[in-house]
Amino acid sequence: MTLWHGRFAKSPAKSVREISESISYDKELYEEDINGSKAHVAMLAEQKIIPLSSAKKISSALDQIKKEIENQTFPFSEELEDIHMNIEKALIDRLGGDGAKVHTARSRNDQVNLDTRLYMRKKIRAISENIRELQRSLISKASEYKDVIMPGFTHLQHAQPILFAHHLLAYCEMFERDIDRLEDCLRRVNVMPLGSAALAGTTLPINRKSTAEKLAFPKISENSLDAVADRDFICEFLSALAIFAMHISRLSEDIILWVSQEFSYVSLGDEFCTGSSLMPQKKNPDVAELCRGKTGRLYGNLIHLLTICKGLPLSYNRDLQEDKEPLFDSVKTVEKILAVYPQMIASITCNKRRMLEAASDPGLMATDIAEYLVMKGIPFRNAHKMVGELVKHAEKNATTIDKLALPEIKKIIPAADKDIFNLFSPSASVSKRNLQGGTAPEQISSRLKFWSKKLK
Amino acid sequence: MTLWHGRFAKSPAKSVREISESISYDKELYEEDINGSKAHVAMLAEQKIIPLSSAKKISSALDQIKKEIENQTFPFSEELEDIHMNIEKALIDRLGGDGAKVHTARSRNDQVNLDTRLYMRKKIRAISENIRELQRSLISKASEYKDVIMPGFTHLQHAQPILFAHHLLAYCEMFERDIDRLEDCLRRVNVMPLGSAALAGTTLPINRKSTAEKLAFPKISENSLDAVADRDFICEFLSALAIFAMHISRLSEDIILWVSQEFSYVSLGDEFCTGSSLMPQKKNPDVAELCRGKTGRLYGNLIHLLTICKGLPLSYNRDLQEDKEPLFDSVKTVEKILAVYPQMIASITCNKRRMLEAASDPGLMATDIAEYLVMKGIPFRNAHKMVGELVKHAEKNATTIDKLALPEIKKIIPAADKDIFNLFSPSASVSKRNLQGGTAPEQISSRLKFWSKKLK
Amino acid sequence: MTLWHGRFAKSPAKSVREISESISYDKELYEEDINGSKAHVAMLAEQKIIPLSSAKKISSALDQIKKEIENQTFPFSEELEDIHMNIEKALIDRLGGDGAKVHTARSRNDQVNLDTRLYMRKKIRAISENIRELQRSLISKASEYKDVIMPGFTHLQHAQPILFAHHLLAYCEMFERDIDRLEDCLRRVNVMPLGSAALAGTTLPINRKSTAEKLAFPKISENSLDAVADRDFICEFLSALAIFAMHISRLSEDIILWVSQEFSYVSLGDEFCTGSSLMPQKKNPDVAELCRGKTGRLYGNLIHLLTICKGLPLSYNRDLQEDKEPLFDSVKTVEKILAVYPQMIASITCNKRRMLEAASDPGLMATDIAEYLVMKGIPFRNAHKMVGELVKHAEKNATTIDKLALPEIKKIIPAADKDIFNLFSPSASVSKRNLQGGTAPEQISSRLKFWSKKLK
Amino acid sequence: MTLWHGRFAKSPAKSVREISESISYDKELYEEDINGSKAHVAMLAEQKIIPLSSAKKISSALDQIKKEIENQTFPFSEELEDIHMNIEKALIDRLGGDGAKVHTARSRNDQVNLDTRLYMRKKIRAISENIRELQRSLISKASEYKDVIMPGFTHLQHAQPILFAHHLLAYCEMFERDIDRLEDCLRRVNVMPLGSAALAGTTLPINRKSTAEKLAFPKISENSLDAVADRDFICEFLSALAIFAMHISRLSEDIILWVSQEFSYVSLGDEFCTGSSLMPQKKNPDVAELCRGKTGRLYGNLIHLLTICKGLPLSYNRDLQEDKEPLFDSVKTVEKILAVYPQMIASITCNKRRMLEAASDPGLMATDIAEYLVMKGIPFRNAHKMVGELVKHAEKNATTIDKLALPEIKKIIPAADKDIFNLFSPSASVSKRNLQGGTAPEQISSRLKFWSKKLK
Repeated sequence: MTLWHGRFAKSPAKSVREISESISYDKELYEEDINGSKAHVAMLAEQKIIPLSSAKKISSALDQIKKEIENQTFPFSEELEDIHMNIEKALIDRLGGDGAKVHTARSRNDQVNLDTRLYMRKKIRAISENIRELQRSLISKASEYKDVIMPGFTHLQHAQPILFAHHLLAYCEMFERDIDRLEDCLRRVNVMPLGSAALAGTTLPINRKSTAEKLAFPKISENSLDAVADRDFICEFLSALAIFAMHISRLSEDIILWVSQEFSYVSLGDEFCTGSSLMPQKKNPDVAELCRGKTGRLYGNLIHLLTICKGLPLSYNRDLQEDKEPLFDSVKTVEKILAVYPQMIASITCNKRRMLEAASDPGLMATDIAEYLVMKGIPFRNAHKMVGELVKHAEKNATTIDKLALPEIKKIIPAADKDIFNLFSPSASVSKRNLQGGTAPEQISSRLKFWSKKLK
Repeated sequence: MTLWHGRFAKSPAKSVREISESISYDKELYEEDINGSKAHVAMLAEQKIIPLSSAKKISSALDQIKKEIENQTFPFSEELEDIHMNIEKALIDRLGGDGAKVHTARSRNDQVNLDTRLYMRKKIRAISENIRELQRSLISKASEYKDVIMPGFTHLQHAQPILFAHHLLAYCEMFERDIDRLEDCLRRVNVMPLGSAALAGTTLPINRKSTAEKLAFPKISENSLDAVADRDFICEFLSALAIFAMHISRLSEDIILWVSQEFSYVSLGDEFCTGSSLMPQKKNPDVAELCRGKTGRLYGNLIHLLTICKGLPLSYNRDLQEDKEPLFDSVKTVEKILAVYPQMIASITCNKRRMLEAASDPGLMATDIAEYLVMKGIPFRNAHKMVGELVKHAEKNATTIDKLALPEIKKIIPAADKDIFNLFSPSASVSKRNLQGGTAPEQISSRLKFWSKKLK
Repeated sequence: MTLWHGRFAKSPAKSVREISESISYDKELYEEDINGSKAHVAMLAEQKIIPLSSAKKISSALDQIKKEIENQTFPFSEELEDIHMNIEKALIDRLGGDGAKVHTARSRNDQVNLDTRLYMRKKIRAISENIRELQRSLISKASEYKDVIMPGFTHLQHAQPILFAHHLLAYCEMFERDIDRLEDCLRRVNVMPLGSAALAGTTLPINRKSTAEKLAFPKISENSLDAVADRDFICEFLSALAIFAMHISRLSEDIILWVSQEFSYVSLGDEFCTGSSLMPQKKNPDVAELCRGKTGRLYGNLIHLLTICKGLPLSYNRDLQEDKEPLFDSVKTVEKILAVYPQMIASITCNKRRMLEAASDPGLMATDIAEYLVMKGIPFRNAHKMVGELVKHAEKNATTIDKLALPEIKKIIPAADKDIFNLFSPSASVSKRNLQGGTAPEQISSRLKFWSKKLK
Repeated sequence: MTLWHGRFAKSPAKSVREISESISYDKELYEEDINGSKAHVAMLAEQKIIPLSSAKKISSALDQIKKEIENQTFPFSEELEDIHMNIEKALIDRLGGDGAKVHTARSRNDQVNLDTRLYMRKKIRAISENIRELQRSLISKASEYKDVIMPGFTHLQHAQPILFAHHLLAYCEMFERDIDRLEDCLRRVNVMPLGSAALAGTTLPINRKSTAEKLAFPKISENSLDAVADRDFICEFLSALAIFAMHISRLSEDIILWVSQEFSYVSLGDEFCTGSSLMPQKKNPDVAELCRGKTGRLYGNLIHLLTICKGLPLSYNRDLQEDKEPLFDSVKTVEKILAVYPQMIASITCNKRRMLEAASDPGLMATDIAEYLVMKGIPFRNAHKMVGELVKHAEKNATTIDKLALPEIKKIIPAADKDIFNLFSPSASVSKRNLQGGTAPEQISSRLKFWSKKLK
């Protein structure tokens, strides 16, 4: 029999229990539920709403329950629906009347909100730290190969030579914004909802600020209806994680391309690849593929929760119980990605020769020629057009632009001089892009220093 | 050590194992995997690719493994990654060389595809039958209350009187289309992929049609690359289930409205409601809310898989392993909804008096008046305008249109006659909509008969 | 002043008009609206609900209005909200009382539903035919290059040699299922809703079957509430288009990879590429990229409509007006993709030499060796392991398996014979996969014949 | 002929132009494009990359072009693809060689990124201000009806009495978080990308900080690859708007419920409702329904962009052109909602009597009784159970708990005293919830003061 069943003539049907239970997944919140209850009863005792002795008994029983849960000896019951009721029932069974006081001035509506916020606070911090670890692995790999030149791509076509380190650092920037977003989200998560009770607050003389202090919350919620009804802080979190996953999907795509036989730019450690049940020769970048695939999960979880919240009237509706599985699943998925990704990055070996060769096609220096002409006073659009014609001319003659003789070049680009031949070196090309954000070694070195310091 | 590990120097890292294992969820497919293997080895023996004795040994070992899995004595290993490898390894451990023959002419790529199709075939049939059960509950409730009149709503505003049965039958139609969609999907699911091997087919002289017959597949796949690479049959299934969930969300919304204090149209059995941990008086339609909320899950799972598939090159990519969790979750969610919904419908009690009262507002008969004027030769748009003015006139005089005297009415509607007063009865209004699809009792009775026969 | 405004004291605010108008996009339905009205008034006249003379006048005025719309001389008004009211108002302005009869026994709720179904019927047929065109372009290209061998990929790693035609035919299969899905959808679209009126049917003695016949509908809707309230037929259509777009995104990804400098497998006609505003040398596969990107649009439109429908009570709610923009946008996007894709496929030139070279890595024949050993009686899993060791051995000695001497091979694979060296030819490998769905030339030829006949 | 066409032999096909043009929607960015170009050429002149005289000529021609666009006399050409090329071409046509200098040291890749950021900065500020206006309307309405009591709902069931103002203020809190999120997003938007050029930076000696200052950007981008490749700032914005729309969908749902005949809590101004084309009596809350429906659009646009970005390799890919339509559509949709919503809120009239009556059911005070018993020393869970039994007892006797005699009550609740009868007043119940966030008039007044001050 559940604890709320006073007015009911019949128990819920079995199929009802199965659809409405949440203990199978919300036990994840046991630690937060216990910490929340301990702070809550301490406050209740301070306010003389319950005796100090009751609060103390509850508190030590909660510690005991925590141990049992961690040792897997606590007897969870699906009939008791959720983590809150499982723990409250255990308190009552163990402490009798004292245990029956824990739920004073509280509803599951504000309690689960508190637990979720405590859980998210913990996870946001852990995930941010794990993203830092991923950044470290990128910085370390970028430093290891800081002179390696590769083609930069647009449209998956060779565009201009860049440093391999520049490419990896692009992801550092993305992940930095991911952390920023998580921190902004945390400010909105870090608000104490307890005292909102079912929806309207309690009539008992509680002290919400005291509870907040005990749980290290800088703010308390300002509207009890809003506090129990809204899940925007979870939507925002799932959105931040979805964007993070999108970044991972792009890095994974890059890696999958690079390890293909066609690219052969890098190889991954054996321990980050798997083989085939049929084809003995295969070495597949499965981890990168799985991480790319997991984007679907993160996007799906976001839509899952947004859909739930759409069109719900105030305040709490039971639909909101469905917020936890997408939340937990997104967190666990991101944790799995972050457990494996830094090690996989660390296992990368570059095939420098192959990368440089690919970056050495003189066509990649076409922009440099156009900009060289600009410095000779030719309007850029005209310069661009001439270089385009030069490329076409070379192609028609089955050669490349660096192989053309100067007079031949001058026919199309009268302003060209013999110094034009200096432009066909990928390392010269890279070095000349020496502006903030650019690919020149000086810029990349300085940025590597910045990151090394920041990530220390 | 995994079975594919011949060429590798190092084992996968622990974090790699954790992100790449699927045994924690794909054991769901154990029965399909075993049935598939049995058919496969029988065909291999027929074709003399393996000895009949090996096939027989494999087959009985598979039967034994099945029993062990069902008795929960089979030792699953995460290190062996997935259900396929767990079972193959057990065969090898038990049968040695004979067991090592099961994976002949097969890859996990076509094997998992087969298993998924067998699973979906089973589930589509079961879900369709369960939707039929839901339709039965609606028909039964509609028959029980077949004379009850209620307001039909548009924009959640009273529009015209309808039969309560008409409202329930609307959902029968929707669920019928859901079944239709599932059946159409089943045709595309019911295609045998084995023999596609990793991607290009096998060089061994197998007989695909024989395997298909053994597994009761009417068709075999026509392109091996497509067979291992595409998941559109799952996308389609998840979409059909998402649409079904959308229908459930609407029925749930109706029920939630109807049991609100404001509507008080119907009540639900206690066993389909739950109480509050704080407010002793509450009786909440939690099941309807949870089912409405679960729409989020079904939409999320659809986007999950669509996202995975977006932009993948041919043929198999490991991202596709991520197809199973959204599939299983959507199936289980729909099963839970269907386990509880027919019983909840059966528990509905109508508050007939309250419903009729709400349908008795003469404003709801405004369209009937306009159409009555049409039969007197007045163009509809003019009739509509006059009746609008009549409503405004009554409102201004704080009365309702049925309370106006005939001369007063005639000032606005000269063509009105005293028979206009016959129009203000909700039951007359309902009866007059006696066309196919309309709300008249005659129509609804005939439709109830149709459904009773169809659902027998 | 709108036509429904009888009972209102004030006109809608400007901001209200702006948010509620739909004429800016639903004019797309003008033809369907006019055809529907013509059938409707013809039926009304048959049933003596309106005079034949009125019906005739309305019908010719509608023809006139259609011409004006097509000549862009029809004066659309935002104040009149939508296409239905714009046309009805024009009829009244032009015909007076006769025009005021068109909306007899009809509501915008069933009218817009009819228009949408007529529109979708037209578009489903057109899109299916355009997909056929795309299939034709694939078949034609596959025939042109029917002997070209390329590596088949799994995990974007070389797996086994396949025919290029086999790869293109995989997409033919996918597009065939897309057409199938559209046809199944069409059966549910092809249902005549008129007569459902606002929600409950009309009290006037209309003949729904006659209207259905005039508009070539094989079925009429069976529940008026359902007919005006549900949009599942549009959800299903958007889902089928989303799956089609997913297929396009995969083909686009393949093409983008193939034209990269690293792959250099194929090139595209200049007219299907674009250049860079900055880099003169670039030739980018923009069309393939744009088509891949448009997947986002199709997925978004599906979620758009599913979200709208979630949790709406019966019957019509104004939210449903928002169904049309995602519908129109998905249709137009698919039309744009299909206008360009067949031509782009036709412009493909293969770099046969490069493709064959990539397929000639003896590692790709590893499965063939394992299967060769199976035919010598070695259990597959053991064979797989030996070949894996052979691959590792060759790698360690910086060679490839085809370069090893027979005695060296026999140390690892005692059963190997000199005929093993026959296995290292990609064309032999391809030819041996001679089973239905496999990549052997015989199979592909037969399938090309099948398609050519079907698509004639 | 486009401006990038130097190397091409053929012009793009018509169908290619149609799928690749963006001028039909990106003209929205004309102002940003012009402002960006003016700052850019001023910097180029400062750096002596182009002559000052060229910069001046370009600048005044841009002013002229801006005027023409605003007067709709500028001749846009689809063949020129996008807003950037349309403007550059006009400059060249008008200024010759001087115009041909505008695109120096710039690519469309960084240019469009700049334009988008400028556009978003403008829109974020405007939307935030419009949300403030919505908050003002809520505060004003809450102040107007600050004493009105209504039932607070959980599960759409009466839970406890609350102030109507408390309910409206819940939305103020949500909208405040929406503004917060937009401001956080703005920090990440407000970063100057110019100088990133195509992907790797430029070889010309530009001064990025000077450009940033001219355009009032506090930061410049730190990695050119990231700057042109990533769209996370737009994803984040679309997510913030989706969450805002979710809030609007909930407020809309509340309003739709409140104006239903069953609730009759409030009525809306005629000018925010619309009528029916068929039913003359209808007054529908269309604006609220449309706004609820538009949530679908906002969710769809978010998924649209997230899908585009999934799995794209670095750096720029043409898929990203598809970012603008969901961006513009979400902005316009939110603008439309915010144009109409504050006025609609202002038009609300409360039916105080009806609301109070609904809040007066003594069952709503059940929690108060339980908490009253807690103050008498009874453990809450026991108190809760007793009150539950009291409710059941009253129901069985077809009465309500306030109608029971004290001795009857005492049989179930021995601790009850005659002061228990003071608990059955909704206004007493409301007043007792006098804690921060609670529904007591004192709390609500103080919060109204807070908001009035903040929103001044």
